[in-house]
Amino acid sequence: MTAPARTERRSLERAVETFAEGKPYDLFFLSVRGMRLLGRKTEAAFPGPDRPGLPAERLKCGLVEAHMLLGVAEREQVAEDHVAVFYRPLAESEKAELFAEAVADPMADLYHPYAQLGDRIRAAAETEAGGWEVTEELVRELDHAESVLREYVPERLARLGFDGGGRAYDAACSTGAFLAAVGSRFPAIRTIGQDLSAEMVAHARSRVDEVHCGDSISPAIPEGEADLVICRHLNAFVVGTRQAHELFAAAASRCRPGGYLVLLGHTPILISSQWCEMSGLRVLQRSAATPSGHALFQCYILRRD
Amino acid sequence: MTAPARTERRSLERAVETFAEGKPYDLFFLSVRGMRLLGRKTEAAFPGPDRPGLPAERLKCGLVEAHMLLGVAEREQVAEDHVAVFYRPLAESEKAELFAEAVADPMADLYHPYAQLGDRIRAAAETEAGGWEVTEELVRELDHAESVLREYVPERLARLGFDGGGRAYDAACSTGAFLAAVGSRFPAIRTIGQDLSAEMVAHARSRVDEVHCGDSISPAIPEGEADLVICRHLNAFVVGTRQAHELFAAAASRCRPGGYLVLLGHTPILISSQWCEMSGLRVLQRSAATPSGHALFQCYILRRD
Repeated sequence: MTAPARTERRSLERAVETFAEGKPYDLFFLSVRGMRLLGRKTEAAFPGPDRPGLPAERLKCGLVEAHMLLGVAEREQVAEDHVAVFYRPLAESEKAELFAEAVADPMADLYHPYAQLGDRIRAAAETEAGGWEVTEELVRELDHAESVLREYVPERLARLGFDGGGRAYDAACSTGAFLAAVGSRFPAIRTIGQDLSAEMVAHARSRVDEVHCGDSISPAIPEGEADLVICRHLNAFVVGTRQAHELFAAAASRCRPGGYLVLLGHTPILISSQWCEMSGLRVLQRSAATPSGHALFQCYILRRD
Repeated sequence: MTAPARTERRSLERAVETFAEGKPYDLFFLSVRGMRLLGRKTEAAFPGPDRPGLPAERLKCGLVEAHMLLGVAEREQVAEDHVAVFYRPLAESEKAELFAEAVADPMADLYHPYAQLGDRIRAAAETEAGGWEVTEELVRELDHAESVLREYVPERLARLGFDGGGRAYDAACSTGAFLAAVGSRFPAIRTIGQDLSAEMVAHARSRVDEVHCGDSISPAIPEGEADLVICRHLNAFVVGTRQAHELFAAAASRCRPGGYLVLLGHTPILISSQWCEMSGLRVLQRSAATPSGHALFQCYILRRD
């Protein structure tokens, strides 16, 4: 049995999310100790206890905390109009213990298998709503929501052996803040951004070495010429699954042998680490933790051997 | 890790079924030794090597065979228009070994989590096609496809302690063949059938003690008066998920304390054993094997304590 012996005899519970009203994309699984733990994402402490000087805030973002875990998944059923996952509940102390194991294991798989079922609804709504307007406030919000990821990734790349030379290419650079953080940690690197939005490109211009306006299905850097490829756009609420895979292939083709790729975002990544592996990339890590270990987030770091 | 050590380093493979053209309902999971094995249903030897006198036949039915197993499931993703399950493949000898463990364990969970995604397509098609016409040929086909289940269940009930007295109620008795097999094994039992189709009721009349025409949402037997309740109708291609749960509640309410319920069918059961457990029923078994062990099939046997 997959469950720890002590949960096996607990009463089953059921997490249900309808496609129309619920948020199936909030359901996540976390693989720890050979178990599939089920959780439901809610607002997390942001940025968390690591920067006590900052005002307390709770934000629905990429961060997942121990208390969001529900239990050990036993079976799921994807029905016509809803998803149901049956699980054996975990005590708070067990959640903390298993979460700590995941924090210590960068290969712990944190994923959202129903991310696109919510998207089906979103797609219908968005057609009417149209695109985003790029305001100063939106720029601040986007930059803020990603600050935990921006602080984590460059240092982590250094620890994984990235030498900081060559070119860093961000296929959907938006405000350019992420690339700027990479450039700041690795002063020798040339930062190259691309974005679909002319307004975003205008924002990014002062922060990066080079910026291009255009769809990253045609990347603004030649094949095999990036030492680091950053994908912050292959996520739910940004693209659909098919498009995510096409854009991933385009971006990955720009990575030179020996180079690194990073996939992240503050909504669920639509590419699985398994797909990355099947695409011939080595998966160095799948999840990351905040410095205090209070939260986990998806962060795929890949290498082209 | 959930995978046996020897599969962990094998190359990943991916099973994909689109909603429009594929058969997501053919994907099944089998829980064995704490692992989730993935499989894809194809035609099985029917009835199999147990009755060598019968002509060899391969039939797409409730039977699952070892060779249909694909590997150890690692992650699934339910996208806008398809399901993808990533797995580490198993060698044929490993399939045989794990399958044999499931054959020996009546609590092994065999299930189809995407049964209704195919149904979404079916529903659209069926609206045009209309209902079945009850021909002699259809009756023979239905009876034939269920013969393995019919031979298994009465004997198994006896071994599980069912004393064979009182009333056996089949909420959707169709041709009456299943109830007749129950009556044949337990001569003291009174067999009571119900079916939505007047034509089926006419076919069943000579085979059972009592038969009623009508929707089993209003069962033809009073609450708590059945010693055995048979549900052969809570399956994909028969009803939708919501309806299956309503019909299950109606049928289960007819079972007396100490009585038994059986859920089966030759298409995926839409009720999970977990839901049965949450409904206050004791799950005595979830899957069954043919006498030779060549195939497994879903067979929930429940008891109201």
